[in-house]
Amino acid sequence: MNKVLIVGTGLIGASVGLALKANGFEGEVAGWDANAEELKKALECKAIDRALERREAVLETDADVVVLATPVLPILDWMQQLAPKLKETQLVTDVGSTKGEITALAGKLFNQPEGAQTGRARFLPGHPMAGKESGGAALAEADLFRGATWLFCSGAGWMAGGELEMEWRKWVVRMGAVMRELDPARHDEVCAWVSHLPQMLATALSAELQDRFADDREGMAAVQAIGGRALREMTRLGASPYSMWRDVAMTNTKAIAETLGALEQRLAHVRENLKTPELRDEFAKANKFRATRS
Amino acid sequence: MNKVLIVGTGLIGASVGLALKANGFEGEVAGWDANAEELKKALECKAIDRALERREAVLETDADVVVLATPVLPILDWMQQLAPKLKETQLVTDVGSTKGEITALAGKLFNQPEGAQTGRARFLPGHPMAGKESGGAALAEADLFRGATWLFCSGAGWMAGGELEMEWRKWVVRMGAVMRELDPARHDEVCAWVSHLPQMLATALSAELQDRFADDREGMAAVQAIGGRALREMTRLGASPYSMWRDVAMTNTKAIAETLGALEQRLAHVRENLKTPELRDEFAKANKFRATRS
Repeated sequence: MNKVLIVGTGLIGASVGLALKANGFEGEVAGWDANAEELKKALECKAIDRALERREAVLETDADVVVLATPVLPILDWMQQLAPKLKETQLVTDVGSTKGEITALAGKLFNQPEGAQTGRARFLPGHPMAGKESGGAALAEADLFRGATWLFCSGAGWMAGGELEMEWRKWVVRMGAVMRELDPARHDEVCAWVSHLPQMLATALSAELQDRFADDREGMAAVQAIGGRALREMTRLGASPYSMWRDVAMTNTKAIAETLGALEQRLAHVRENLKTPELRDEFAKANKFRATRS
Repeated sequence: MNKVLIVGTGLIGASVGLALKANGFEGEVAGWDANAEELKKALECKAIDRALERREAVLETDADVVVLATPVLPILDWMQQLAPKLKETQLVTDVGSTKGEITALAGKLFNQPEGAQTGRARFLPGHPMAGKESGGAALAEADLFRGATWLFCSGAGWMAGGELEMEWRKWVVRMGAVMRELDPARHDEVCAWVSHLPQMLATALSAELQDRFADDREGMAAVQAIGGRALREMTRLGASPYSMWRDVAMTNTKAIAETLGALEQRLAHVRENLKTPELRDEFAKANKFRATRS
């Protein structure tokens, strides 16, 4: 792996660049972002060595590894455009938040059954569990992935690794991440619970508070003054950008809707039992969940 | 103020004792707790100088200030028992999480309209916005209230402060807290949003995850491995004890039910609009709420 191209030089993309260099990568890291400002920042903070000058240059890349680090819909779009252009010797990987649609498309356009020789490039679906409620290259960090789980959803029946995939995985480990394999459907189900639902919840609660208190200055002042750690934690992700989460909602709709529906029912149950011993059972189950967590 | 009696020497009560001493109080701090173990711990960590030996001794106290630091229902119970026993020269204050029922009872049993001389002790309803998801004297800290808001809900028409109340307020400031006055109904409404709803939410989500994944070892392992800061923040309060929250739910039922009902509707709205531009509006409102917070 001598040349890497990062498509999408926001928080995650720029952090990948910084992390590669901080951990000894001596090849070239090129970058492209549809937002010229983000691309410039990534270059300034040395997350990339070179900025591509136009969008079309991505399709002509001779990078060994292309890292797609945009939101999910542009990832799907780049996959469509890159597949006919890349060579068998090139590897594409991504950092997208949902994996069902991406792995399905990868199976169609990139990877081939073991033994088949169709000249297609390979695709390794990935998902580092790292991020912040605000995006952008300005917040990128070389240590963003240290201690984080980096999921791979290769799925079954794909062509086994190949050297480039093995090398990319080594770099992921050098960046400090802990690799974990997960079936794509399982990935989207579990991520709906641990990531997408918390996001929608924080968004809904923040929006509700905004509607409820925006025209009530005294009330909003009290909310701000009295609200402590609990409120801060529950609404922190309310600052997250729609641009990224739209694609998550679009590509994992069914699983997210299921978690939301289940939580709505659970909240109704709590509401109807604020004065009954059922509330004790809810607390007991919740205590148990927390006790089993590290 | 020479003598203080703390009734309920758990996290908050013991922290009040430690904070008084750490900030120069040289009088006696006595304590009582229905749980002999908690009482012993409070004595051992020097949160109190002396442990009362039996429950009845509380009613015979000659303390200048009695601090009720139990959950809300026992606070109401102690108020009933203490009112006929205490003198006009004694002040009772509390740290209870809801204020509607407590201030109503205080108006009946303790405080008198200005000028009236009925020999009743005074009651100052308070609520320091500090705590942890786990309770107990073992976690008490002298600095627990530093920087925290300490609400007082004296309400209108009560007998003005008196020297003891002024002195207690000075100690609250010395403990590092920031005082704020709030109407009791407003207190319970705002606390439902910023504290009680987040608690019920964390309990409901933790209980749902426990039900969903307890019998699915692989799934629970994935939840634990993949779940990061978002899940941790959203479920942290799942560890909170029922014993305390039962009383909050019992004494602020209507306000909490309203917040839960509103959030249920909001979540349903998000669920039904995962693929429509309505989701953008929700994110925009949420972004706005977060942007106005310090």
